[in-house]
Amino acid sequence: MANLEIFVSFLLIFSFFPRVLPGQNPSRRFSKHGPRFLGKFSFPTKNNGIIGAPQYRYETRYFDQVLDHFSFSELPNFRQRYLINTDHWTGPDRLGPIFLYCGNEGDIEWFAANTGLVWELAPRFGAMVLFPEHRYYGASMPYGNREDAYKNASTLSLLTTEQAIADFAVLITELKRNLSAQACPVVLFGGSYGGMLAAWMRLKYPHIAIGALASSAPVLQFEDIVPPETFYDIVSNDFRRESVSCFNTIKTSWDVIELEGQRNNGLSHLTETFRLCQKLDSAYDLSDWLSSAYSYLAMADYPYPADFLMPMPGNPIKEVCKKIDNCSDKTDILECIFEGVSVYYNYTGSVKCFNLDDDPHGVDGWNWQACTEMIMPVSSSVNASMFPASDYDYRSDEKFCLENYHVKPRPTWITTEFGGHGFKKALKDFGSNIIFSNGLLDPWSGGSVLEDVSDTIVALVTEKGAHHLDLRPATADDPDWLVEQREAEVDLIQDWLDEYYEKNKAVYSM
Amino acid sequence: MANLEIFVSFLLIFSFFPRVLPGQNPSRRFSKHGPRFLGKFSFPTKNNGIIGAPQYRYETRYFDQVLDHFSFSELPNFRQRYLINTDHWTGPDRLGPIFLYCGNEGDIEWFAANTGLVWELAPRFGAMVLFPEHRYYGASMPYGNREDAYKNASTLSLLTTEQAIADFAVLITELKRNLSAQACPVVLFGGSYGGMLAAWMRLKYPHIAIGALASSAPVLQFEDIVPPETFYDIVSNDFRRESVSCFNTIKTSWDVIELEGQRNNGLSHLTETFRLCQKLDSAYDLSDWLSSAYSYLAMADYPYPADFLMPMPGNPIKEVCKKIDNCSDKTDILECIFEGVSVYYNYTGSVKCFNLDDDPHGVDGWNWQACTEMIMPVSSSVNASMFPASDYDYRSDEKFCLENYHVKPRPTWITTEFGGHGFKKALKDFGSNIIFSNGLLDPWSGGSVLEDVSDTIVALVTEKGAHHLDLRPATADDPDWLVEQREAEVDLIQDWLDEYYEKNKAVYSM
Repeated sequence: MANLEIFVSFLLIFSFFPRVLPGQNPSRRFSKHGPRFLGKFSFPTKNNGIIGAPQYRYETRYFDQVLDHFSFSELPNFRQRYLINTDHWTGPDRLGPIFLYCGNEGDIEWFAANTGLVWELAPRFGAMVLFPEHRYYGASMPYGNREDAYKNASTLSLLTTEQAIADFAVLITELKRNLSAQACPVVLFGGSYGGMLAAWMRLKYPHIAIGALASSAPVLQFEDIVPPETFYDIVSNDFRRESVSCFNTIKTSWDVIELEGQRNNGLSHLTETFRLCQKLDSAYDLSDWLSSAYSYLAMADYPYPADFLMPMPGNPIKEVCKKIDNCSDKTDILECIFEGVSVYYNYTGSVKCFNLDDDPHGVDGWNWQACTEMIMPVSSSVNASMFPASDYDYRSDEKFCLENYHVKPRPTWITTEFGGHGFKKALKDFGSNIIFSNGLLDPWSGGSVLEDVSDTIVALVTEKGAHHLDLRPATADDPDWLVEQREAEVDLIQDWLDEYYEKNKAVYSM
Repeated sequence: MANLEIFVSFLLIFSFFPRVLPGQNPSRRFSKHGPRFLGKFSFPTKNNGIIGAPQYRYETRYFDQVLDHFSFSELPNFRQRYLINTDHWTGPDRLGPIFLYCGNEGDIEWFAANTGLVWELAPRFGAMVLFPEHRYYGASMPYGNREDAYKNASTLSLLTTEQAIADFAVLITELKRNLSAQACPVVLFGGSYGGMLAAWMRLKYPHIAIGALASSAPVLQFEDIVPPETFYDIVSNDFRRESVSCFNTIKTSWDVIELEGQRNNGLSHLTETFRLCQKLDSAYDLSDWLSSAYSYLAMADYPYPADFLMPMPGNPIKEVCKKIDNCSDKTDILECIFEGVSVYYNYTGSVKCFNLDDDPHGVDGWNWQACTEMIMPVSSSVNASMFPASDYDYRSDEKFCLENYHVKPRPTWITTEFGGHGFKKALKDFGSNIIFSNGLLDPWSGGSVLEDVSDTIVALVTEKGAHHLDLRPATADDPDWLVEQREAEVDLIQDWLDEYYEKNKAVYSM
């Protein structure tokens, strides 16, 4: 499958971005770009991320989309892909709702396959299902193909969130017009970055969508709205809550790795211990590989086996810590760490050796976004975190972006455009019908909205949920709290629709 | 004054745009572009439009503004001009409010001089006053100067409403940061197109502005939201309510002019009757000149003498109709018409002959906007209107724009971006704190919001008001209904501020 090939190359390219090159100031070497861990989540695995995934039925169509909505420069339109299913739609006469998933940074087919909730709710609500793809991802390439779209900073310049949301707005407006379905209510869905798009689209285009379910959407992870250490503190807490000794072993391991890396033959020893295919250039590469695993484990700390980023058991952090704790009588702490992260990198046991190599020259769409608008500060605290301490350093990120992407980030633009500072106050009497759903195990939850803003802008928080777990298809293993969270979402969506139908009858149309 | 010279050239250039060239299908010859009559309102007259105008004090500053907020193309920043007065501002510690007038299509100094209300309210509220200029107007020219900014469709491409509103958002955010005034509430003001900007900015940037007074803002004059004949029907009603015979005389005059134009020496006779400096090429040019006068008279049908577009007496339509009715025993109806429109074109009596010539080659910013986003359909009905009947013909406008501006309009974009269809329903439970103030004499009132949308998105309508009369400085001649309208505005703004201060004390800052 061509799509999968593209994704594999995305995956390979991606990890280089937040990495600080070897030889730089060691105090900065652990620096990570926050957005990295959002972008990574969009990379599919072979079976589309679901063990025994149901195959959803849809038609694939293309829309002739404006490339720059906010200027009138002479630019070619592009073909925006969207997936559509009208099997259960009750149609224009009965004002059948339209469920629109805001496609995020990746192939839309993958998001469609991983967003079971929307498919499962469609029959219940008599809804049309629509998955428009985000520009510059999947098959929705400006300038006709990926190569030309990603050629340089100029061709990439229109890869922005505002343009992507406007794409959705224009597409749904045209589609409804063509179907004489102008009066049909639209409900938005989105997870992670897609959840941010859904929430922002509801705020910016209330005349187009009556409400939004924004799952695991870190809309407040900008500037100083939340402390930058939040992300790694939550990852660390996820480990500590399973096992304090596990947390301590990991916290100790970084120095061990660094010291080992400085010894004669130390890098060879590390290479061997971690079954790497190629000899390590630097101990930092290993630390980075390990810390990524911990972060992704926290995001995907689901209560049942899943294959979203990697095939993993249910409650994977518990499994990792079991491995680490059970081996702690061994002399080599690094052996324990290796056994632990193998739960993430090699749960199926099929990997013979691990490859850390990335292609540092590729350009990935999400990296571009992380170098332009999605400036999400992340640092690591000295005490609460199990990771090496690191400060957030905007200047070094800016330098990186200028050198590698030839673009200067606008670190305050997202909050200017979409808000964030004083979020609750600004929206207390403005806006309505947004659900911010979060699971507190998810390290991104700390950058999302965890308290109700008003009666209709509400937070649905689960203590034991991870990254947009609620959007996944229902399974027999779903714990009660997850079933309840989804039912609360359904009730709220039903309220929005009831209110819409009521108004549509009663209010004189201006 | 350089500014005035620029404006005079604007004025000359402007009128050509909606005119259909001689020799075209006569049924289309009366076609008018609606937006023309918004744009015209921004042209200043010599004494800044106010007889005995108060001189407001302000400092002129410049802000280094991003040229394209919604893409990361490598473009030069531009200097955005803004006027600022902090004389009465109570400052950051006391959360002194900031009154921001959304500069519209013209020199900001002129809007500052003509928006007395904001200046008069500032001391009462302890407010800072801010008049940022709209990009591509006045002294706020991208690419360093007007010539380069207006060179071609490519340099003009970023003259859009969304960019202009984003300019305001970025400017006020930066300014507040620099003053440590982040917590100070911002209230928006705007009239006409500026009123549209204020309303839309409140909807799109609720985190930046707590409310907006949108005076005479025809936010619904798009697509088929209001009937296209609304504008001319209101102009016609303004005349009919003063005098049915006046209305009838004008309605009859078009055929008389057309027939006269077809006679031998008819154009010479018309030229003579209307004291034109140069011989008419076509009777249509005369009709256009006359119909413009009637439309502007309706917009500026103020209850006291003013000099906004032209020096005029109070209740100018009454004066026009007096002239027309009193002379109706004369044999030549055209003499009567001439005497009538002289109230508009020559109230001071200083004009010896009238010049209809326009420069058809110039490009004016408003014309660009009317050829890109501001596609506001206007037609003339057969019965209710005193003007010759004409249909709205989008295709001919599109052809005009392609030929003259090398740009294709996006006639459905404004409603996609800002809403409009089902306005009341969409905003009934979304958004707050917008005043749509209108006077029903104003032909643009029919395209504005004349009913309350909700408890906090309210319509303040006066039966006898004209185009954003409420924004003008208070005078001794203000009728009671105008004083009351302004007091209602003040009360609402006070409510917004009280609520903001209350929340600011009580609500935990997220």
